[in-house]
This record gives sequence, structure tokens and C-alpha cells, in this order.
Amino acid sequence: MGPGIKTISYSATRNEIIVLDQTRLPGRVSFVALRTPEDVFQAIRKLMVRGAPLIGVAAAYGVVLAAKKGNLREILHAADLIRSARPTAVNLSWAIERMKTAAMASLSPGKNRGSVSTMLLQEARNIENEDKTACRRIGRFGARLIKNGMKVMVYCNAGALATSGIGTALGVLYTARRQRKRFSVYACETRPLLQGARLTTWELNRAAIEAFCICDNMAAAFMPQIGCILVGADRVAANGDTANKIGTRGLAIIAKYHRVPIYVVAPVSSFDLHTACGCGIPIEQRPEEEITTINDARITAAGTHIRNPAFDITPASLITAFVSDRGIISPPFRKNIKQRLSRT
Amino acid sequence: MGPGIKTISYSATRNEIIVLDQTRLPGRVSFVALRTPEDVFQAIRKLMVRGAPLIGVAAAYGVVLAAKKGNLREILHAADLIRSARPTAVNLSWAIERMKTAAMASLSPGKNRGSVSTMLLQEARNIENEDKTACRRIGRFGARLIKNGMKVMVYCNAGALATSGIGTALGVLYTARRQRKRFSVYACETRPLLQGARLTTWELNRAAIEAFCICDNMAAAFMPQIGCILVGADRVAANGDTANKIGTRGLAIIAKYHRVPIYVVAPVSSFDLHTACGCGIPIEQRPEEEITTINDARITAAGTHIRNPAFDITPASLITAFVSDRGIISPPFRKNIKQRLSRT
Repeated sequence: MGPGIKTISYSATRNEIIVLDQTRLPGRVSFVALRTPEDVFQAIRKLMVRGAPLIGVAAAYGVVLAAKKGNLREILHAADLIRSARPTAVNLSWAIERMKTAAMASLSPGKNRGSVSTMLLQEARNIENEDKTACRRIGRFGARLIKNGMKVMVYCNAGALATSGIGTALGVLYTARRQRKRFSVYACETRPLLQGARLTTWELNRAAIEAFCICDNMAAAFMPQIGCILVGADRVAANGDTANKIGTRGLAIIAKYHRVPIYVVAPVSSFDLHTACGCGIPIEQRPEEEITTINDARITAAGTHIRNPAFDITPASLITAFVSDRGIISPPFRKNIKQRLSRT
Repeated sequence: MGPGIKTISYSATRNEIIVLDQTRLPGRVSFVALRTPEDVFQAIRKLMVRGAPLIGVAAAYGVVLAAKKGNLREILHAADLIRSARPTAVNLSWAIERMKTAAMASLSPGKNRGSVSTMLLQEARNIENEDKTACRRIGRFGARLIKNGMKVMVYCNAGALATSGIGTALGVLYTARRQRKRFSVYACETRPLLQGARLTTWELNRAAIEAFCICDNMAAAFMPQIGCILVGADRVAANGDTANKIGTRGLAIIAKYHRVPIYVVAPVSSFDLHTACGCGIPIEQRPEEEITTINDARITAAGTHIRNPAFDITPASLITAFVSDRGIISPPFRKNIKQRLSRT
């Protein structure tokens, strides 16, 4: 099922993480070895490894790299370094917190250095396996929403490339396809870094799902034909306000105008009950060259000011429902998110 | 006032049209001579000359090129060829119809070949001069809408580059600046051909107006700060439904959600009373390479289907008002547009 992509793997014998370099897609499928926490920091920062769930997994293995070589102080330092790579996706802090907790736990009497790294490796493998499981569960819950003949709009890349499993939003589509449903997909290209054009269409082509690529500004023109929209999330606040790739907010407003349902598809690790609402979510500002330059060619007039927020906030009121690994969460969100997340 | 750009000029002695090649901006300011109606057809088709008012002016001079060399049959043939270059902007048909009417009128008794081309040249000069006047009048009517300290959002390029004068939407801003108003401009880059990033920021920089360039999908994130939106039009139907650059519809929906006024700024030559509503406006579909390739580098995965409509329809219900050379036209649009256009 799905596009059969291995985005990340950790080799204990070599103590290195092998990641698919997503900045080279779709032109080149190439893998890079990350050998230090600094490598992991850079890979996340430069979007070689991207997607909220996947950066959680990468961060966890990044802490393992440190544990094989350093003492507790160095492990915690590496964890904080990696956490600082990107501020918005909560999966990154969430994975780092789990790893720090595991590191502290390993200090209980009778443990030695070997067991710290063993316990951290086990925790990283848990995070990876939970991510894979979450994707499969999300796929099953979400596939019910996909009807035969539907045109489904997707945004950015919430696919296998964004996780260690079959993906979140695209995982729903891979599951629906396995159930022999027929549908086509409209992928918005997602400026500035074109994750929709570069990554989502590449994944869908590999999975033999019919895909159309449109510019982001075409969403409203095609919306009257669209059956539903599936997007990912970098962080969902306690009230359901959602940070996701810049442009999601506009898409949700356009969806509401056309009465098209929009589903945020994300594992519970993307929900942050400690953040009350969207205004509490930090929005990463990225370099202006991402907008002014494409493939080394300058596209904007010199002297122009650039604004490049990587994410925006979609108010909960615009979201039809969440598709999580604990089922579909409908409004009222504050109550239902809390309830669903407190279940174990 | 304005950026001091001469987009088009006709030389009677050389019988050629000199146009600024807008496909090379902002990297290079270069001019090209158009010597045949076929040249004009190609220049319009390839967006070397673009913007609804400007393609009307270019089309008129294109007919003059034919008149200097051909008989009436050839003149009418050239007119139809040029008209076929692009379907959406009504200014093109409107200018061609005026030129054909002038050609027929020149056939009344006592006229000879010399006088056909003289009359056609006069009509083309009239169209150009009326366009310049319309821009100035639009500027004066529209400048009232711009308040000190405002952030104004603009889309695509409805500037001096889109006309033979100071522009429509940007003409409003140049006029407001001459009135010493202080404001800044947010220009959406406008995929796929980036007229906002390439052309609008270039114009605004030349006019020393503070300009920020954002990706189209960032409009909703910045909208809470925006005071008003100014867009151009390629064709306004009798009921106020408006065809403009793809993305305008989405922008108008996002504006309504945030209660930000959106003004369509266009001369009366862009209004088409013969088209009852937006569904009667033909939408040009452009080549997929405009989306898949930027500066010769491929950005989408091979095998992906592409959709590339160049325009969309903004329903009249989303438009706050029109700023025309006959004043600001408020709802109810069907009645008020008819009334304003019937005045002479």
C-alpha cells in the first residue's frame, strides 16, 4: 500500500541515520547519512527531512546519536539543539521530551552508559513504530470520508514523505485506494518550496493515483468540483486552532465559502493541549531567498521587501473535523480533543 | 507621477510598434519592434504585451500595421487574427471592433487608401489617448479610498505596465502618493507567471512606494492587517461578475471573511454589457509548462496532470465596488453599471 518510500532508517552498527533528501525530489532520489546531532539539526532546518511526524522521529534518533558518544549533559544538550531547529511543529518538542524523559529514567540505580543508549534507542524505535501505527489507523478512520468518484484536494505534503509510515492525509488516500475506491486528487503546488508540486505528485504517481497539480491561487476556481479537502497539521491547539503550512488558512476560508468539508489529518502527537489557542503557536519565519529565487534564478525585483512565514493558523471554526489515530474528532473541539487525548 | 514607463509607442514613419518586452522584466528592460499583425498576435499571445487595457491599444496599432500595406479584406483579416490572440480580456475585442468600424467608415465616397490608414491611425491614437485619460481619472476617483498608514494589497499587475498610462489599480496608488499619502503595498506574487513578483514590485520600486512581496497563499495570513485590496479586471459582466487573473476569486473570498473591502479597478472599456454574467466569459487555458517549469528548471514530478486556467470569475456579491474612469460604482451593480456606462 502506498508509494513504498523509506524516509528514514537508523543503523545501530554504524550509529547513523539514513534519510531521503527531500530537497532533491522529484529530480533525484538520494539518501544522506546523518552522523551527529548537528547533522540532524541541519537536515531538519534545511527541510532535507520534513513533515511534523517525520521530524519527530528524526529528532529521536538524533538524540540516540548523541547517547552513543556522550554523557547525560551532552545528550541533553544535543536534544535541545535539535529541538531548536524549527519552532512550529509540536512533534519535534514532543519527541525530544520523550527522549529526555527516557534519558533521565535510565539514570535510576543499576543503569550504566550502555543502558542509557539502549533505552534511548528503544524509545526512538517506539516513536517510529507508533508513528507507523498512527498512520495506518488514521488511514482506516479517514478512508470512510472518501467516496467513489470524488475529487479530493490536498495541500503541501502530508504523505509518506512527511512520516515514517504511509502518511497522514495521503495515508487516508492510500487506504481508500486499497479499498478499491476510485477518486482523483488535486494537489496545490504550495509555494514557496513547492512541496505539493515536488513531493505530493511524486508520491501519488508512485502509488498510481490520478493527480492534478494546480497553483495555490487556483484553489477557489476548482473548489466547486471538490468533494473534500485533506490537510496535515504542524500543531493543533487545545481549542482546535491549527498551525499548518502557510496557505491552509486561505484554503479553509475558500472551502467554507463553497461548503466543502476540510479535514485536518494528524496523529495525536501533533496535538498540544498546553497551547490554549492558535495565537500561542510560534510561527517560523524563513529566509527570503525561498521566495525570491527558484532553482538559482531570481524572480522578484531587487529592493523588494519579502515576508516568508512558513505556517499560518486556521481557526477551529473553519475546520470540519480532525482525523486522528484515535478516530475522527468533531466539534465542539475543545471538549472532544481533550476527551480523545486523555484516553489511552 | 508613477514609474515613468513607456509600454508602447507607434512610429508612423517606420510603421512599427515598439513595445517593452514584459517577459524579460525585472531582469532586463528591453524593447521589441512589432512590424506585422502576426507579430502583434504573437506578442499578445506570449504576454510580451499584457494587461487588458494595453492589449487593446496594441491591437489597435496592429490593425494600423495592416492598413499601411493591405486592402480592406486584409485589414479585416488582420483584425480578426489579433482578436484571436487571447479570449478573456474584452478590451481586445472592443478595440478591434472600433478599428473595424473605423475601417468601414473610411470607405464612404471620396475616401482613398491613404485615408483608410490615416483614419485607422487616428482611431488607434484615440484609443491610446483615451486609455491614458481613463487611467488618470481612475487614479483620482480611487485615491480617495487610500488612507494614511494603510496597507494595501494588490494582485497580479494592474499597473502602468498593463496600460499605456499610469495604470489602473497602481494608478490609484501613484495618484494617492502624489497627494502625499503614506501607505505600503503587499503584492501577491501571482503564479504561475509571477506578474506580481516580477512586474508590480518593479513598478512600485521605481515609484519609490514601499512594497512587500508575498506568495499568493500568504494572503489570508496577512489579511487581518490589510486596509483594502485593489485588483484589475479583464472583463466585467453586466451584473458585475468579474474575470481577472486566476486567484482573484480566492482573494475576494478571503477578503470577505476578514471584512476587508476589495475594489475592482478598471476602465469602462473592460465592462461588457453583452455578457450577462460571469458564466458567459470565456476562460483562457494556458500551456502547462507555465506551471511545471520556472526559468527552464522543472519543478513538478513527471507524469502529473496540470490545469492552468489563466483567469477566474469573482462573483459580484464579493466585490465592494468598481473604480472606473466614470467614478466609483457601488451595488446594486447591474443597475449602476448600466447607468454609468450609458452616460457619455
